[in-house]
Amino acid sequence: MDTGFSLAELAEHTGSRLQGDSGFRCYAVASIEQAQASDISYIRGGKFRHYLQSSQAGALILPPDLAADYSGHCLVNPDPYLAYAKVVTLFYPTTRPAAGVHPTAVIADDVVLGEGVSIGAGCVLGAGCQIGADTCIYPNVTLGYNTQVGQRCIIHSGAVLGADGFGFAPDRGMWYKIPQVGNVVLGDDVEIGANTTIDRAALGSTRIGNGVKLDNLIQIGHNTQIGDYTAIAACTAVAGSVQIGRHCQIAGMCAIAGHLSITDHVIVTGTSMVSHSITQAGVYSSGTSVTENAVWRKNAARFNQLDKLARRLAELEKQLADLQNKDTH
Amino acid sequence: MDTGFSLAELAEHTGSRLQGDSGFRCYAVASIEQAQASDISYIRGGKFRHYLQSSQAGALILPPDLAADYSGHCLVNPDPYLAYAKVVTLFYPTTRPAAGVHPTAVIADDVVLGEGVSIGAGCVLGAGCQIGADTCIYPNVTLGYNTQVGQRCIIHSGAVLGADGFGFAPDRGMWYKIPQVGNVVLGDDVEIGANTTIDRAALGSTRIGNGVKLDNLIQIGHNTQIGDYTAIAACTAVAGSVQIGRHCQIAGMCAIAGHLSITDHVIVTGTSMVSHSITQAGVYSSGTSVTENAVWRKNAARFNQLDKLARRLAELEKQLADLQNKDTH
Amino acid sequence: MDTGFSLAELAEHTGSRLQGDSGFRCYAVASIEQAQASDISYIRGGKFRHYLQSSQAGALILPPDLAADYSGHCLVNPDPYLAYAKVVTLFYPTTRPAAGVHPTAVIADDVVLGEGVSIGAGCVLGAGCQIGADTCIYPNVTLGYNTQVGQRCIIHSGAVLGADGFGFAPDRGMWYKIPQVGNVVLGDDVEIGANTTIDRAALGSTRIGNGVKLDNLIQIGHNTQIGDYTAIAACTAVAGSVQIGRHCQIAGMCAIAGHLSITDHVIVTGTSMVSHSITQAGVYSSGTSVTENAVWRKNAARFNQLDKLARRLAELEKQLADLQNKDTH
Repeated sequence: MDTGFSLAELAEHTGSRLQGDSGFRCYAVASIEQAQASDISYIRGGKFRHYLQSSQAGALILPPDLAADYSGHCLVNPDPYLAYAKVVTLFYPTTRPAAGVHPTAVIADDVVLGEGVSIGAGCVLGAGCQIGADTCIYPNVTLGYNTQVGQRCIIHSGAVLGADGFGFAPDRGMWYKIPQVGNVVLGDDVEIGANTTIDRAALGSTRIGNGVKLDNLIQIGHNTQIGDYTAIAACTAVAGSVQIGRHCQIAGMCAIAGHLSITDHVIVTGTSMVSHSITQAGVYSSGTSVTENAVWRKNAARFNQLDKLARRLAELEKQLADLQNKDTH
Repeated sequence: MDTGFSLAELAEHTGSRLQGDSGFRCYAVASIEQAQASDISYIRGGKFRHYLQSSQAGALILPPDLAADYSGHCLVNPDPYLAYAKVVTLFYPTTRPAAGVHPTAVIADDVVLGEGVSIGAGCVLGAGCQIGADTCIYPNVTLGYNTQVGQRCIIHSGAVLGADGFGFAPDRGMWYKIPQVGNVVLGDDVEIGANTTIDRAALGSTRIGNGVKLDNLIQIGHNTQIGDYTAIAACTAVAGSVQIGRHCQIAGMCAIAGHLSITDHVIVTGTSMVSHSITQAGVYSSGTSVTENAVWRKNAARFNQLDKLARRLAELEKQLADLQNKDTH
Repeated sequence: MDTGFSLAELAEHTGSRLQGDSGFRCYAVASIEQAQASDISYIRGGKFRHYLQSSQAGALILPPDLAADYSGHCLVNPDPYLAYAKVVTLFYPTTRPAAGVHPTAVIADDVVLGEGVSIGAGCVLGAGCQIGADTCIYPNVTLGYNTQVGQRCIIHSGAVLGADGFGFAPDRGMWYKIPQVGNVVLGDDVEIGANTTIDRAALGSTRIGNGVKLDNLIQIGHNTQIGDYTAIAACTAVAGSVQIGRHCQIAGMCAIAGHLSITDHVIVTGTSMVSHSITQAGVYSSGTSVTENAVWRKNAARFNQLDKLARRLAELEKQLADLQNKDTH
């Protein structure tokens, strides 16, 4: 990184058009607020146009409409965020741990590890686990028996894959444990966040598709299936036997009830409760946002009268119509 | 499992009536959608009646009303789910780890372990812990000092019992830490999910009753008491000094505020906020479910006008009554 | 503790006025419900005045107004909760683990540890970590490379600091991982709860200010900044690039969306969704509390008609006004 990269090199690496001095060298990547004269940064779109004036960055990655208004050095790219991601990768190529199994990791005898797998300190892999090539498992991850992980996956610290699903049959006021004898199967290029839990299936497999990205502290229930390239943000809970489609985006702290289906290309905004299946692609939401507590208290109290208010409204409409009729005749 | 079980054996094991060929052999258990001719499956109730036609299962466990309409091999049981659980247990009897303490576990000198206890790799048990007979602690569990665990409990990976409760006294704009010197006490037959946290009491004990089942990623605050046979689903947060009764069912991602009581046999549905005590058995709910984002945005905005809308409605009622009176006289 | 403390000693330690016998000895601290004749307990305020009669405690810590009505031994203090905290500290002075690194902890070669640091069993500290003096890290904590922790911090078991932030650029229907090459920086006197996760910044630092207290199972996204002396209760999710001010109190299971700011001295009540910046100190809330399921179902259904109801109300107001006008003329 001492010699940095020329704008020409960065343009080629990101497939961008170059505007300004092709020999200009950038020595680091920085956020638009913090970038200095030796840094490259990016502006994602017109909403942040004001940074064109105020940024101290030596070079910028810009979409064509912003580049047209910019006289400094820049890379012009229809997708500045992706180009930025590729520049960061170029500057910081080796953030992943080296391949190999840390001596404190506890790996069952019959575990199958692909080429280039990295398994961190304190990890525990149960019998029958299979880990695909170039997968990285950070320290203190636990994989229950028979967990299958694809190639090029990343599993962050504290994640637990393959604990028992939550299955109990009521039995004379007590709970009879239903054996959870399935497993967890991850596709290729999956990323699992820190302290996220994915339960093994009761029978069969809990499946996470290729390219799925799960953030931290997410719960995935037993037998749930998540389609390829779906991303889920932190603290979301997905109950058991849920089918989530491909290319979905579920925001943080959503709750998805059991035994329902969400089709492909569905976006669910933060803190939503999904209690019925979603059969059409689109954006879905629930919940209400903060207001001053004094205002909220009144409105929240009214929420619990809502049905009565609606009935009073209907009654008023009826009475007014009667009055209008009388008036007319 | 090579020789499977005859329907007669399964009927006896589950206390079911048998319909069809008592010598018919089942070789595996499968879900109703995936079961094949050598498998036994189950249908829980009339809601899933259509599977009577479509299922490929060799045998079914059915409630009496469905069995009356079924001509194939079946076990007839008023509680098919419980009978199914018992069949799964018969087919897959040994999913629990063997007894013993893994050499990488770190156990304080004075810990008392009952007969048949299994403690997995990477577990850490602090001073004064007591673990009852036949309890299974999966890898990477942490038990703080003086934690007491009953018999036949299961604690899944990543769970932390006995971390300090969240207790701080405001002190000139800063926080003065209140020592948390109590402990955590679990009854018998308790199951604790992966990455669930149960804090030690400030003074005294945080108590989890017999037969309580906690799912993954649940938080139980200090000094909270959970009654026997209560079950709580994933990602629910129970604050400190809460009293939850016996035989309750709390669904996923609920939030239960501190210092309140919930009586026995209460059911709370998913994502509910419990901010006052519940003194009557029954089913309780809060929250709203997803709709299309465009619809939701309008309704959520109206939520913040709800008290004003209610006042306008009351004013309208008054005015209409005046008008009707005038009209009459 | 065998000899206990005299009321005079406790008065001096807590800066309280003494009422009753200064030589009276207390041998333990207990909650107001459980305290016996040899215990000291406390009453925080008038809401709990009835305990003046019923408590069996040998001595009490009371605010002046309650002390005026009490004839037993007591310490009089304007802040009984803080005085109680100091008494507990006196009785139970040594709950923190001894200094030193447990032999099973895995510490990178270049980690810098201050004086008196305690690092528990199974902890993993990546390259470049720096831990300030007298900090205590409980067992099974994971700190990613370059994590900086201040002095006198406490990090509870299962916490993960410095896992990758959740940053992906859409790339032809797939996700291109944006390297997360920043770090996590904790100030002094910070406490981090069990299984809480704090992600490393994409670039730069995720910063937790001095004296910040985070409860269990909290998620802090990449590049977020939390101001000094702010406290956050369990299961709250803070997305990325959030700025939270100083002296804030965020209750449990709140969700704070990305890229927004919360000013100083803001209180957010439990289960709130913060989806816009908060620029004024005060108390903020959202959500609705549980009611009987049958009532809730009707009200929740009406919620999804709220905008229509509001429009019908406006229409009624218009028609009634027309009618009143007609009536007048």
